[in-house]
Amino acid sequence: MKYSVGVDMGGTNTDMGLVSENGNIIQRRSIPTNAYTELEPYVHDMMQEIEAMVAEQSATDGEAVLLEGIGIGAPNGNFYTGCVDNAPNLTIKGVLDFGKEIKKYMPVPVVLSNDANAAAYGEYVYGGAKGMQHFIMFTLGTGVGSGIVVDGKLVHGSTGGAGELGHNILIPHGRKCSCGREGCLETYTSARGIVQTYLELRRENPDEERMLKEVPDAEITSKLIGEAAHQGDPVALKTWEMVGEWLGLAMANSVTFSAPEAIFLMGGPTQVGEPLLKPLRAAFEKYLLNIYQGSCKIRMSELKTNEVAILGAAALLKMKSEK
Amino acid sequence: MKYSVGVDMGGTNTDMGLVSENGNIIQRRSIPTNAYTELEPYVHDMMQEIEAMVAEQSATDGEAVLLEGIGIGAPNGNFYTGCVDNAPNLTIKGVLDFGKEIKKYMPVPVVLSNDANAAAYGEYVYGGAKGMQHFIMFTLGTGVGSGIVVDGKLVHGSTGGAGELGHNILIPHGRKCSCGREGCLETYTSARGIVQTYLELRRENPDEERMLKEVPDAEITSKLIGEAAHQGDPVALKTWEMVGEWLGLAMANSVTFSAPEAIFLMGGPTQVGEPLLKPLRAAFEKYLLNIYQGSCKIRMSELKTNEVAILGAAALLKMKSEK
Repeated sequence: MKYSVGVDMGGTNTDMGLVSENGNIIQRRSIPTNAYTELEPYVHDMMQEIEAMVAEQSATDGEAVLLEGIGIGAPNGNFYTGCVDNAPNLTIKGVLDFGKEIKKYMPVPVVLSNDANAAAYGEYVYGGAKGMQHFIMFTLGTGVGSGIVVDGKLVHGSTGGAGELGHNILIPHGRKCSCGREGCLETYTSARGIVQTYLELRRENPDEERMLKEVPDAEITSKLIGEAAHQGDPVALKTWEMVGEWLGLAMANSVTFSAPEAIFLMGGPTQVGEPLLKPLRAAFEKYLLNIYQGSCKIRMSELKTNEVAILGAAALLKMKSEK
Repeated sequence: MKYSVGVDMGGTNTDMGLVSENGNIIQRRSIPTNAYTELEPYVHDMMQEIEAMVAEQSATDGEAVLLEGIGIGAPNGNFYTGCVDNAPNLTIKGVLDFGKEIKKYMPVPVVLSNDANAAAYGEYVYGGAKGMQHFIMFTLGTGVGSGIVVDGKLVHGSTGGAGELGHNILIPHGRKCSCGREGCLETYTSARGIVQTYLELRRENPDEERMLKEVPDAEITSKLIGEAAHQGDPVALKTWEMVGEWLGLAMANSVTFSAPEAIFLMGGPTQVGEPLLKPLRAAFEKYLLNIYQGSCKIRMSELKTNEVAILGAAALLKMKSEK
């Protein structure tokens, strides 16, 4: 039977999955990314796990696995070069040529892109964006990523680095961003940005805060703020309102670019649901140019949070074969 | 010999040109758009002029003209439907189905898109963007338009209305825009926006203004502000600095979308040159995300101002035949 491998390279762990043709993750393995400082031993151990999955599946199926290839979603992953370019959150430094290294072990196609692009393409191949020619995916997490599909293809741009809407400057001269500039969307709608908003609001409104009064600043997370919002905490609710307002503006702006038929949303902070989605939809409508009214929906990713990265990486192989 | 026709449908005039294969405008004709309130007589008269150009050229060449088709750049032109959709600045109202109407006269391919898209595609086929797979065109005029090319194709999006970067909200809760919202790029960098900035600055700094002191508010134009800047008028220079700052920010933001290899600039207000371009380039570098540094150039359109609209419209036919 035919399978593909999806690899989600994170700063902490590298998760690998054997994916069936219909998009089920049949097996999973993991190695600690941050235990490595060199590419060779890292890929060696990664390939050992992949080979083990393939061997096990061949035994289960009673026939040799036909491997379509290995898709990799990675921070700073460059689709054109197949390299990870100096990702700041990896312990393995430099420009990492995965394709070349993997081919030492297995003569299969290797496709690599950044993690948000992979997530977008996963939605296209296996999720709610099936059949859509134009859509955008926003991923909220430690940072804010995006993947853009135009005419059914991921937009990689001239450098391979297209689709960094988390670093679109939303508020000129706004919050300081880790990229060295100011006012990036990421500073307002990443998990970190959400916590910052909450902390600012509770300092300004000490009397209104109820649920998280005993939790010190350093222990506040977007997850806790989400729980507090569901319990009616006014400061938490106000936080999500502001996040929705900012994200709605950013999404409306992105529509002027590619007029997508949907904008998808995924990642930890989005799990809060309505406290974010309600103000988000209202802001999106408010900021959307009249010619686009009614043409673009905001939708949650239909892939499971713990599967999207592996499925997205595996989906990248479908793109290659389309060319 | 083979020719194409480019039609630039403006609110005041409709300019038509017979374009040779190598991009020279061989003949030009014009009819007053605002003399019509119905599509049928308008297209009738337009086609008379086009037929006259074709007949004349056939006589000149001593052989029948082979007409590739008619390309039309129009406000609110929709590539997918071939219609002009309720353009506010036209005296002919409603949804105008050009393709259908023209085919009554001539059985040739008709392609229509909005004017900024046409300008971008003209640059791709006949101008400085030849061979580029990823670029963006900003057109500055009464409004601000844009055309986006990704993977060598114009981005039309799911509705046909993609590429409206003039209505990207640059400054949240900023200047009131004609679209009904606030802070659109257009309110800061259109001819009208430039005049507004100048008027605000001279009210705030009555002592600094020199060149245009005697010109009443209602007679100030972006052209006059450009001339004053070249004569060293500090208020005019400051105006262009601010326009450059805003436009540089907008351009840097657009790079996070499609990572183009160049951003082109055209239109009346851009003719001022260095007083705009110098602060524009500085702002662009300042606001550009580090991963894009050095990968994207700002360039002036290489097409002549009085030819770009016709050439762009004619160029649309090349797109159709690529499909």
